[in-house]
Amino acid sequence: MSNRPSTPAEVRRACRSGSWSEQTSGLAPGFAQANLVILPQADADEFHEFCRRNPKPCPLLEVLPAGEFVPRRLAPDADLRTDLPRYRVWKHGELIDDPTEINSLWRDDLVAFLIGCSFTFEAALLEAGLPVRHVELECNVPMFRTSIDCESVGRFHGPLVVSMRPFRPADAIRAVQITSRFPAVHGAPVHLGFPEQIGIADLARPDFGDPVPIHSDELPVFWACGVTPQTVLMAARPEFAITHTPGCMFVSDMTDRELLQSEEPVEIIDRNELS
Amino acid sequence: MSNRPSTPAEVRRACRSGSWSEQTSGLAPGFAQANLVILPQADADEFHEFCRRNPKPCPLLEVLPAGEFVPRRLAPDADLRTDLPRYRVWKHGELIDDPTEINSLWRDDLVAFLIGCSFTFEAALLEAGLPVRHVELECNVPMFRTSIDCESVGRFHGPLVVSMRPFRPADAIRAVQITSRFPAVHGAPVHLGFPEQIGIADLARPDFGDPVPIHSDELPVFWACGVTPQTVLMAARPEFAITHTPGCMFVSDMTDRELLQSEEPVEIIDRNELS
Repeated sequence: MSNRPSTPAEVRRACRSGSWSEQTSGLAPGFAQANLVILPQADADEFHEFCRRNPKPCPLLEVLPAGEFVPRRLAPDADLRTDLPRYRVWKHGELIDDPTEINSLWRDDLVAFLIGCSFTFEAALLEAGLPVRHVELECNVPMFRTSIDCESVGRFHGPLVVSMRPFRPADAIRAVQITSRFPAVHGAPVHLGFPEQIGIADLARPDFGDPVPIHSDELPVFWACGVTPQTVLMAARPEFAITHTPGCMFVSDMTDRELLQSEEPVEIIDRNELS
Repeated sequence: MSNRPSTPAEVRRACRSGSWSEQTSGLAPGFAQANLVILPQADADEFHEFCRRNPKPCPLLEVLPAGEFVPRRLAPDADLRTDLPRYRVWKHGELIDDPTEINSLWRDDLVAFLIGCSFTFEAALLEAGLPVRHVELECNVPMFRTSIDCESVGRFHGPLVVSMRPFRPADAIRAVQITSRFPAVHGAPVHLGFPEQIGIADLARPDFGDPVPIHSDELPVFWACGVTPQTVLMAARPEFAITHTPGCMFVSDMTDRELLQSEEPVEIIDRNELS
């Protein structure tokens, strides 16, 4: 029998008790997972604005009021200080610790950002019968820095990072249709076909993740990637920051289906509206 | 002052009176235009089923009961025998006449099919700011026979014909999104990027329409084309048929906007439901 927790509440409980400190991929299928960024109030406003202006790489699912650690929208019984498998603690852009909880680090001026994750749209692609290469190969998605600059806000700036999934043309069209309906998790691709047009020299050498083969009848399709806010954040070297450990996401109570939108992004809960 | 009729009713009245017998492109902007196919009841059922099984090239907007010439859904005050600029009359697949009205040819067993036209989605592409090459060049869209077979029904069979519009990758993605919302006028592209995969040897030599240049940073994007039912119809050589003359469409009272759907095709009025 597997000990893998299977509901979002079970995953969070297992993280909280310390019995789960691994990646969350595949856990609680059907429920959205989220990237976590925590910043002091002094940096949070600029980062918030950066996300607002760059919604493709940084789709905000929830921004909590300063000092709050209960994400009322995504999981009202959760505690962001304990309910992820593992965290990364940064000082001035340097990784200084990777604890399994951050109770002792919590401060009243910390603002938590929960950002959409591509697991949701990948589940929808697989459900539609589209082959997702890195899932088939059980490796990490290949990711590339591009020549496309994010819109900068204060100290937060940097290149858009994209993830790449190869598809045959008819499947690429289906993939555009399907992911367009998930603006809260990066939405439609930003590019397809000509990697050099967006500053990618060699698809066999991703900047992050693993390379995957592209067959001669396939097009490389590129989506804005949640690694973008992390690279932007680290480059900005804020005095203090906490993020999730890559792959160790926050598992929410929101279903993938709730993030399905025909056109409009999900309503974003503004920190100011809540406080 | 221009004598161009500008509302759908004006266009139809001008056709009826004989004062307009030219192409309808650009007339009554904002209103959907339609391809017309008229067949004797004996052939109509098979053709109807062919359209139902091949909705991408043959999106039915309305099918009239046998003998009916008033399209109650698309324009309840219209008369399909007089309200198009020009018609083509076919016997056993041979063009025998191109009259400006078909009153004297009308029979109680004739069934009229009105099929969606790409003018509607091209208007939406242009409205979104996407450059449509053949519109810019004021020529006809290039069209190609493909190696993709339509699903055959009885005598009706043949290759899918596609139209091609070149776009830069980000615009190709937008074009997929926009045209996906118009399933009643061919919907999303069927292919992009690799013409040889669908049996197109030379983009500079279209089977119908005019060639257009494709720049090195552009992808050719292919949509199912309303020429498909015409070529299928002519190859089937029915005893008798009437169609519109290419470019001389039926101008309906339905707005392009009414054909805008997020997902589902417009409800198709079935001949059997009406009779």
